[in-house]
Amino acid sequence: MGKVVTLGEIMLRLSTQTGNRLVQSQSLQAHYGGGEANVGISLANYGHDVLFASKVPDTALGDAVFKHLQRYQVDTRFLLTGGPRLGTYYLEAGVGERAASVIYDRAGSSFAEMVMLEWDLADLFQDVTIFHISGITPALSENWRMMTLELMKQAKKAGCKISFDINYRGKLWTQKEAGETLKQLLPYVDYCSAGKLDAIYLLGIAEMQGNEQEEVSFYYRQMQQMFPNIQVFYSTKRNVQSASANQLIGTLWQENQYYQSQIHEITPIVDRVGAGDAFAAGILHGLLVEMPSQGTVDFATAASALKHTIHGDCNQFSKEEVMNFLAVGSGKIIR
Amino acid sequence: MGKVVTLGEIMLRLSTQTGNRLVQSQSLQAHYGGGEANVGISLANYGHDVLFASKVPDTALGDAVFKHLQRYQVDTRFLLTGGPRLGTYYLEAGVGERAASVIYDRAGSSFAEMVMLEWDLADLFQDVTIFHISGITPALSENWRMMTLELMKQAKKAGCKISFDINYRGKLWTQKEAGETLKQLLPYVDYCSAGKLDAIYLLGIAEMQGNEQEEVSFYYRQMQQMFPNIQVFYSTKRNVQSASANQLIGTLWQENQYYQSQIHEITPIVDRVGAGDAFAAGILHGLLVEMPSQGTVDFATAASALKHTIHGDCNQFSKEEVMNFLAVGSGKIIR
Amino acid sequence: MGKVVTLGEIMLRLSTQTGNRLVQSQSLQAHYGGGEANVGISLANYGHDVLFASKVPDTALGDAVFKHLQRYQVDTRFLLTGGPRLGTYYLEAGVGERAASVIYDRAGSSFAEMVMLEWDLADLFQDVTIFHISGITPALSENWRMMTLELMKQAKKAGCKISFDINYRGKLWTQKEAGETLKQLLPYVDYCSAGKLDAIYLLGIAEMQGNEQEEVSFYYRQMQQMFPNIQVFYSTKRNVQSASANQLIGTLWQENQYYQSQIHEITPIVDRVGAGDAFAAGILHGLLVEMPSQGTVDFATAASALKHTIHGDCNQFSKEEVMNFLAVGSGKIIR
Amino acid sequence: MGKVVTLGEIMLRLSTQTGNRLVQSQSLQAHYGGGEANVGISLANYGHDVLFASKVPDTALGDAVFKHLQRYQVDTRFLLTGGPRLGTYYLEAGVGERAASVIYDRAGSSFAEMVMLEWDLADLFQDVTIFHISGITPALSENWRMMTLELMKQAKKAGCKISFDINYRGKLWTQKEAGETLKQLLPYVDYCSAGKLDAIYLLGIAEMQGNEQEEVSFYYRQMQQMFPNIQVFYSTKRNVQSASANQLIGTLWQENQYYQSQIHEITPIVDRVGAGDAFAAGILHGLLVEMPSQGTVDFATAASALKHTIHGDCNQFSKEEVMNFLAVGSGKIIR
Amino acid sequence: MGKVVTLGEIMLRLSTQTGNRLVQSQSLQAHYGGGEANVGISLANYGHDVLFASKVPDTALGDAVFKHLQRYQVDTRFLLTGGPRLGTYYLEAGVGERAASVIYDRAGSSFAEMVMLEWDLADLFQDVTIFHISGITPALSENWRMMTLELMKQAKKAGCKISFDINYRGKLWTQKEAGETLKQLLPYVDYCSAGKLDAIYLLGIAEMQGNEQEEVSFYYRQMQQMFPNIQVFYSTKRNVQSASANQLIGTLWQENQYYQSQIHEITPIVDRVGAGDAFAAGILHGLLVEMPSQGTVDFATAASALKHTIHGDCNQFSKEEVMNFLAVGSGKIIR
Amino acid sequence: MGKVVTLGEIMLRLSTQTGNRLVQSQSLQAHYGGGEANVGISLANYGHDVLFASKVPDTALGDAVFKHLQRYQVDTRFLLTGGPRLGTYYLEAGVGERAASVIYDRAGSSFAEMVMLEWDLADLFQDVTIFHISGITPALSENWRMMTLELMKQAKKAGCKISFDINYRGKLWTQKEAGETLKQLLPYVDYCSAGKLDAIYLLGIAEMQGNEQEEVSFYYRQMQQMFPNIQVFYSTKRNVQSASANQLIGTLWQENQYYQSQIHEITPIVDRVGAGDAFAAGILHGLLVEMPSQGTVDFATAASALKHTIHGDCNQFSKEEVMNFLAVGSGKIIR
Repeated sequence: MGKVVTLGEIMLRLSTQTGNRLVQSQSLQAHYGGGEANVGISLANYGHDVLFASKVPDTALGDAVFKHLQRYQVDTRFLLTGGPRLGTYYLEAGVGERAASVIYDRAGSSFAEMVMLEWDLADLFQDVTIFHISGITPALSENWRMMTLELMKQAKKAGCKISFDINYRGKLWTQKEAGETLKQLLPYVDYCSAGKLDAIYLLGIAEMQGNEQEEVSFYYRQMQQMFPNIQVFYSTKRNVQSASANQLIGTLWQENQYYQSQIHEITPIVDRVGAGDAFAAGILHGLLVEMPSQGTVDFATAASALKHTIHGDCNQFSKEEVMNFLAVGSGKIIR
Repeated sequence: MGKVVTLGEIMLRLSTQTGNRLVQSQSLQAHYGGGEANVGISLANYGHDVLFASKVPDTALGDAVFKHLQRYQVDTRFLLTGGPRLGTYYLEAGVGERAASVIYDRAGSSFAEMVMLEWDLADLFQDVTIFHISGITPALSENWRMMTLELMKQAKKAGCKISFDINYRGKLWTQKEAGETLKQLLPYVDYCSAGKLDAIYLLGIAEMQGNEQEEVSFYYRQMQQMFPNIQVFYSTKRNVQSASANQLIGTLWQENQYYQSQIHEITPIVDRVGAGDAFAAGILHGLLVEMPSQGTVDFATAASALKHTIHGDCNQFSKEEVMNFLAVGSGKIIR
Repeated sequence: MGKVVTLGEIMLRLSTQTGNRLVQSQSLQAHYGGGEANVGISLANYGHDVLFASKVPDTALGDAVFKHLQRYQVDTRFLLTGGPRLGTYYLEAGVGERAASVIYDRAGSSFAEMVMLEWDLADLFQDVTIFHISGITPALSENWRMMTLELMKQAKKAGCKISFDINYRGKLWTQKEAGETLKQLLPYVDYCSAGKLDAIYLLGIAEMQGNEQEEVSFYYRQMQQMFPNIQVFYSTKRNVQSASANQLIGTLWQENQYYQSQIHEITPIVDRVGAGDAFAAGILHGLLVEMPSQGTVDFATAASALKHTIHGDCNQFSKEEVMNFLAVGSGKIIR
Repeated sequence: MGKVVTLGEIMLRLSTQTGNRLVQSQSLQAHYGGGEANVGISLANYGHDVLFASKVPDTALGDAVFKHLQRYQVDTRFLLTGGPRLGTYYLEAGVGERAASVIYDRAGSSFAEMVMLEWDLADLFQDVTIFHISGITPALSENWRMMTLELMKQAKKAGCKISFDINYRGKLWTQKEAGETLKQLLPYVDYCSAGKLDAIYLLGIAEMQGNEQEEVSFYYRQMQQMFPNIQVFYSTKRNVQSASANQLIGTLWQENQYYQSQIHEITPIVDRVGAGDAFAAGILHGLLVEMPSQGTVDFATAASALKHTIHGDCNQFSKEEVMNFLAVGSGKIIR
Repeated sequence: MGKVVTLGEIMLRLSTQTGNRLVQSQSLQAHYGGGEANVGISLANYGHDVLFASKVPDTALGDAVFKHLQRYQVDTRFLLTGGPRLGTYYLEAGVGERAASVIYDRAGSSFAEMVMLEWDLADLFQDVTIFHISGITPALSENWRMMTLELMKQAKKAGCKISFDINYRGKLWTQKEAGETLKQLLPYVDYCSAGKLDAIYLLGIAEMQGNEQEEVSFYYRQMQQMFPNIQVFYSTKRNVQSASANQLIGTLWQENQYYQSQIHEITPIVDRVGAGDAFAAGILHGLLVEMPSQGTVDFATAASALKHTIHGDCNQFSKEEVMNFLAVGSGKIIR
Repeated sequence: MGKVVTLGEIMLRLSTQTGNRLVQSQSLQAHYGGGEANVGISLANYGHDVLFASKVPDTALGDAVFKHLQRYQVDTRFLLTGGPRLGTYYLEAGVGERAASVIYDRAGSSFAEMVMLEWDLADLFQDVTIFHISGITPALSENWRMMTLELMKQAKKAGCKISFDINYRGKLWTQKEAGETLKQLLPYVDYCSAGKLDAIYLLGIAEMQGNEQEEVSFYYRQMQQMFPNIQVFYSTKRNVQSASANQLIGTLWQENQYYQSQIHEITPIVDRVGAGDAFAAGILHGLLVEMPSQGTVDFATAASALKHTIHGDCNQFSKEEVMNFLAVGSGKIIR
């Protein structure tokens, strides 16, 4: 089993119950999550040693974040306390034709306001196999753009593989800003979650027409030519029939080859937040334990599909449960 | 924006949670609603000045009705208090193959027991663009049959357009009673929600076979020949796959032409009560702001589709949200 | 209307709410049920006199079992109190691709620990038309294997028809043990719920290939040749698309003929526990009131389909409601 | 154990959760109850044979009443179905200084609208030890005044003891109407629940000043002189500190002697609806099993005190639990 | 009835259910409130015309604020939309010995960030009897200090009485800052909510020893000498036995005389947030309708006591309900 | 900070909501806890390194136990998986005069069925300051009596202080069995939670009359004479007014002196399960950080008082929160 560090913001999500708009809700469900924390929890569930580094305020909300992570045995030694507030967002759950909608209230958070890397990086990266971070972090501030680069450099120096999930959010920065930053960061990256839209709009790769496999392979190949250091690309493709029904496919590019999972029919969707993180963690798990590529993408997509069936951001399944799900297939009662 | 008066009964709905029969329910959800109130709330959400006229008892239940309407800025100056009780009904929510079922307990309500028009009608109809009322009101009593006619006459005299939703309920009166009353009322009507069954069973129009568009156009045309004063007919057609999955189409007849919305696949259905009212309000909104006919029926059907995704009778969407839903399509996350 | 005795274990089921894993659940839903109790409640709902015989501890949990059964007018005179505990199981509800999963905690229950037939059997079986029991009971212990045989003999002697639901559970005994026991019990049985897998793996009938009807007819015919005393075989076939969507067909073999219900599309599934018991009770009802065979299998499958739409093990529908459901079809609102 | 008939109206109670006003409640708790039904359930819990006679509509609400009573093994053979509706009331739970408040919606119920005694009275009263009825029933209508008298006469003729709970409600009839009716009914009564206010305002007994025991004894004695047929008077006295804290004392007049229970400090009050019925049932149980007078009033008051600690109208305690509560005292954990 | 303007921040409160710490809460109750909004709602409930002026973001949370106020017929014409976010706070409800605790997350809100008075003040204050504002508003920023002063000047000029609730919060500004600001503002104030601690620590009045009445009178008199323009002082005094039990007394200083309400024993406390606002609104109501001073303080304290018995910030009682509560006394059932 | 090992059984508690009997509960709250686990969690909250040793089944329920403990950073390396089941108990919450009641369903659990010490004891006790265990463990079986003795011997040998909570449960073993076992175990104990009843009924110390302090001192002194190795005795005394209101005092005997906390008035009681464990953990914390004796008993009793205000077995307070509670006193709002 490997040792993994994930670093990023973790937020409080306040969500409505299905069938109620935010405006009519007298109670809200409270979940704690963030891309890197979610990846960390999945990997801890699979038996890896995981450290999550971030910063939360010294309040009951910060304390709740600690307890949330510890519950899954994620190491919180590098989870700092201090700063003004915990980033928050409101999720009005979608259903059927009505899409979910999100209100962000994350500005000014303890993590976003950081101006220096307050961790002992030598200590943080010691003996670490993979360092995982996402494109949301450099999007938070100018400081974080520089600090993200510094983190990657230090991690690299310490011998970590760098895993990076582009995860572009138009509400946080422009495509231009993102593109420029990516060009600085991607030379340090070993494993990269990126999709067609990232290739076209952030990295400036010309659009290409073809079938699913041809297109995805094309973009992966182009990106790899731009950043030959990147050994692995991966992504999910989601066919949205409605907010309650999606088709999900996972794709992986490894050793110059394209791999694709089966199609998962996901209906009803209980909660899709964190499904991408579950996929990323599945890929990293496959890399850590050196599964074959096809097995890796199958495992990761299965983990992502399972995530859709439970409330909350984080994937509450062991690797045995994911494997069993792959073996048994869909929806049979187990008794 | 226009000024609209809607008038009718408003009731307390007590409903079970999905998956529980009434007989096994230890708690019931309380919603306040009625066709005309629901239309009023939708129109208020779209920015129109709306007055709702009705009568509720002088109890906490009556007070709850006031607060429910005021929340959406519906004007309650013509909402009277007094009389014996608030009409009530129990809704056992359906799911899958099991249909919803309703127990009415509406007899003897403060509204149904009214024997004279207690409002100052000149004041009520002053500067009003549309007066909206439904076929449920004349079905409540002999008195209400006469009073409905009187209301239409007075509204007409005051210069209002009359909007009428036939909304035939076999539990309240016979087809014969309804047919006779309709023949008295429809000559005053400008905009009419009516369907094929109304045409055949209430107005005695001979049945005709054809495809969907041919049939609907035929009945609309026939009805218009009977009541040339009616400028607009509209209706929804619902293809019921199960209590949890319906297809919904809206149709509109305006200036001798037939318009039809796209098909909405509505699954799962959260709560279909009030979906017809959401459609009617959408049509009236289109008329008030002089949208093109196709835009009107698209808007109205989209509003109705959205209504199915939320709990409660009334449509909690602004016109911007409905328009955005039409533009973006189905179920994408908005963040 | 007939008089029926059902006998077996009744347990407390503790289940999660849809979308939550057991490990993340702060509250659990409590339901009481067991195959024979569920059959008894359905038959009582249809107007038959039903006695349920079992044993529960002398605690509030035992008391809750009494009250649960009495609510449906099941006679509890032969429900004994005493012994160590109430059998329990935990159900993590499935949804979409994720199957439900069960944790049994039923060992050592008051019923399972019984070592003698503590009832006055002459009294129990007096004037009884049908005695219903399932294959779970002999699976509980060596004692229960003998006691089941004894019960059947005594019931037979008292003039009862014997109804037996094979209901094989691999967690309770081996196929070999089950097969040997069945060979002792089935010669006393008149009505038998059994499927293809029972035929092959428990009774050693050679596998056969054909279409659905050919296969099912073949196994029924083979079983009837082995046990010519059995007049009626019946079973449901479930096509599992996901934990939320199943197709359900009921089959019946009576007077050497195969009958099959329509296909029910069951989506969403609210709670499938007890759906087989609802089917069995429907068949027994058909036999008790001497419905035609096709009507019987239609009724039973409809009852089973309805069961999927409600929470809890027991079917909360009257025979009029089931008949009305068959007549009206799927999902129309009743108001 | 005795055989008891109770007869009266049973209603649906819709109540808020503590700390919410009716006007702000999105869900309401549903309980079924009525004085005579509550007394019947308590007596059934104590092991007596109890028949409850009433009339409920032929709807799911009526069905729920049946199942509610059957759960406690109350015999529902004389519970008729039919008529327009189930009487309903809304209870806004009180707390602290804020009193509970009630909205009645009981007019026009299936029971209140009865115009003839639809039961076979000879069958109803056969072998019955006690017939229990309350002053609410004759308050419902002119018809019910006559029918109550007739019931008492027939019950008397059949050899029953007549138990009557005056239970005066000013919202249903005037003191004058009640007084006149009582004078007709009380000559048939054997056991009577009546208090000081009944004596003064309904029966015209002059007010008297003294300590608690002197006053209560005086009124009981005066009433007994007026109606020497009445052998037993009983009542509770409630010292209301707040809606959450009451002191409760039970009093009993038997064989010309006054008995009084200890004082129960009831805080917090979970639900006081049905506490008087629990007391009445306790007294009747004492009479049925011939407890000593002091034991009877202690038992009845303890039962009433326990009722305050649970949600719902009916007392969910066995006689062993009440006795144990008397023996052990207050609030110790039992493990 | 008067016309009143209240102006201030309104926030989203997210609170735990009693008996759960924030850290263990999977759901939170959502309430909208703020001192000035709460005062406005109470006054609207009492029949006054009330305008609430503030600024909320243009999101579903802002929309919820509108609907919350409109429900009580508070006029929202001067409720602006725009700016970054809605102020939020988390309330961990206290119980027994454990105090409630609050986490503020209000910095950077749309209201706090205002830098100019965006309302048309002439329009806002036209025909207004009372303008109510609190000391929280000038505590929000330097800008708000100046803008508060400007508001008071303009309101004064327009002929309004100025009502001011000092409401000092040590987390928002220092005593020194508050004291200096108060000295600028109080010369414009007519009605002032202020207590002993305000007098000593903010206004520098020397401490004095005496009984309750002597002390309070002393400080009121001293403050009036400093600001002879202030005609009315008022305050509540709370004797905290525990988080679940308080004694509450209201005091009023009017025309040089001290008035005091009865003592309210408030136990259990459902929710004390907004109890001070309910008191202030009661006082303003007394002034608007010219109640006698003793009646005013009794009414205001009763309203405040009632507020403690319900969930949410705002007082959901009509003036008739408050008067009836004063008349009837504590906790009797009303039926 | 110290290193502590606690060892014992951990169970699933299923409890009703206040005001509902078990028999009427459709849902139950799930909490995981046990005396030694609860002590461990408190100590981890206070910053100590805590290992909890036990055995749970390899099911989702066992997994939930792991996650529950990890949440509070209790080390689960010595938490074994395997065996038949998780011990369970049902708690019907008491309120007011009605006591709570418990149904145990703990027999045959994975922990109780252990027949050998499956841990590496040298590893378990390495560098451990305190080993804490309770009298429930030797009560579980003959094997556990021997294994408890062996654990104490090994811990002693490894240099641990032995902490023992007598915690006598009459449902698990007789006084005679307990007494004999205690005489074997207590010679190894350093810190002992024991009360007057333990002294008299288990250790055979003659009863003595005196005031509270005299009595408690007498028994502590006598026990210390019997087991001079025991340096510290401690206990809580609970004055039960009702299930909702208790007075709580903590007592401590250290260096031949008696210390007593202030009296805590605990009303309402949210959940008293685990309050004794919170007290024990408070004492152990005082010993570990060498607080003065009076400070220790004050801290421990405050922690126990706080525990009563929250749902669940384990004390969710940091040492700073307990200290602050002691400093600030009761029930003031903190904002």
